[in-house]
Amino acid sequence: MNLLLLAAEDFETPTRARVEGRRARHVRRILRASPGDQLSVGRIDGKIGTGTVVALDSVQLVLDVELVQPPPPPLAATLVLALPRPPVLGRVLAATASFGIKRIVLLHTRRVEKTYWEAHALEPDALRDKLLLGLEQARDTVLPELLLRRRFRPFVADELPGWLEQAHGVFAHPGGKPDPVGALSTPAVILVGPEGGLLDDEVARLRDTGMRGLSLGERPLRVETAVAALLGRIPC
Amino acid sequence: MNLLLLAAEDFETPTRARVEGRRARHVRRILRASPGDQLSVGRIDGKIGTGTVVALDSVQLVLDVELVQPPPPPLAATLVLALPRPPVLGRVLAATASFGIKRIVLLHTRRVEKTYWEAHALEPDALRDKLLLGLEQARDTVLPELLLRRRFRPFVADELPGWLEQAHGVFAHPGGKPDPVGALSTPAVILVGPEGGLLDDEVARLRDTGMRGLSLGERPLRVETAVAALLGRIPC
Repeated sequence: MNLLLLAAEDFETPTRARVEGRRARHVRRILRASPGDQLSVGRIDGKIGTGTVVALDSVQLVLDVELVQPPPPPLAATLVLALPRPPVLGRVLAATASFGIKRIVLLHTRRVEKTYWEAHALEPDALRDKLLLGLEQARDTVLPELLLRRRFRPFVADELPGWLEQAHGVFAHPGGKPDPVGALSTPAVILVGPEGGLLDDEVARLRDTGMRGLSLGERPLRVETAVAALLGRIPC
Repeated sequence: MNLLLLAAEDFETPTRARVEGRRARHVRRILRASPGDQLSVGRIDGKIGTGTVVALDSVQLVLDVELVQPPPPPLAATLVLALPRPPVLGRVLAATASFGIKRIVLLHTRRVEKTYWEAHALEPDALRDKLLLGLEQARDTVLPELLLRRRFRPFVADELPGWLEQAHGVFAHPGGKPDPVGALSTPAVILVGPEGGLLDDEVARLRDTGMRGLSLGERPLRVETAVAALLGRIPC
């Protein structure tokens, strides 16, 4: 945790916050803070600054908060991700948020198991927690927008083309001659398929929108690895 | 598992292999193979080809193996990694192997907790298992060489300079103006520091060897995310 994130409901006054649970435990056990110590804090969707520990016990942490600095600028890209297995989803969401991506789409494709859509990991609070972990890691405050799209065709036919009017679209597609490594043009829409890959007709529909296939080489990478390798190519 | 990897001891004859445990279970339960089915197989440090299922029951899998194709060419880079927390280590090793890196150094730095060196995850069999998972993912057979260096200074003073005579050295260093995204020059030695970062005198010693600091932006990334973002910049 490089930044303690505070939600609107944590504030008792504009400069006084009180938190319990995971965050208070982390400050007590890992950071081993004491009253008077200063922590890096941020307000969700707001500014970054300093929190001075006023009180800290086994239940709660009370902070005097001064927020002065804007969060880092967002990365100019949208990630469209074929819904991965639940344990992978959490790690990918946190990593994606840590890069500074502010719009994430979870998409159904034919090789996504339908049961994944029923997982506990897809409940709003669970999704939000993973995104917050990524923001805390990256010293950012701005929660990404997260869109769930359970039908591939309407998304690709009706929603994606509008985005691509103002963005360069690429989809990761394993095999073939790898792209020369270089910066992705921004703003970008980056689509990463499921573990089993996209089907031929799904690839054809993406190409029809003007998206370009991009190969990371002949070695198939895990979803979380491919996502980080791709997002690392977006200029800051 | 995109490739079933066979060790020398799995072969009863040059063309007949027998495996038990995790691999046999995976073929039975996940791939749901039956006698006569063909699987992608490879021999550790050897060639890739086809395994035809001869027998498969709750205990073992017997294959007729034909190996014809060389594994994909290695990536021309060495990864030097400050030893991460044990759960992170396994994921990073598998991901690194999946990129095709063939030399990995686990290094002590001052912000690496000394207890990490005593973890079960550092036993040779545990390390090898994680590397094999990465190879299975990437359809590769060649096990990376894994070096454990528990002393930073002798490694940087005595071992690293020889490597840098024939390789470009970079170390990931958060903050500051990010590098323009582009291909890393190869052959490369890429060093990724610990979660808390490298200390100033460690950075100075690395610079003294001729290594260059490279920033991935102002957001601190998790080790596994930074590693994938960096390795994704090595030309295939």
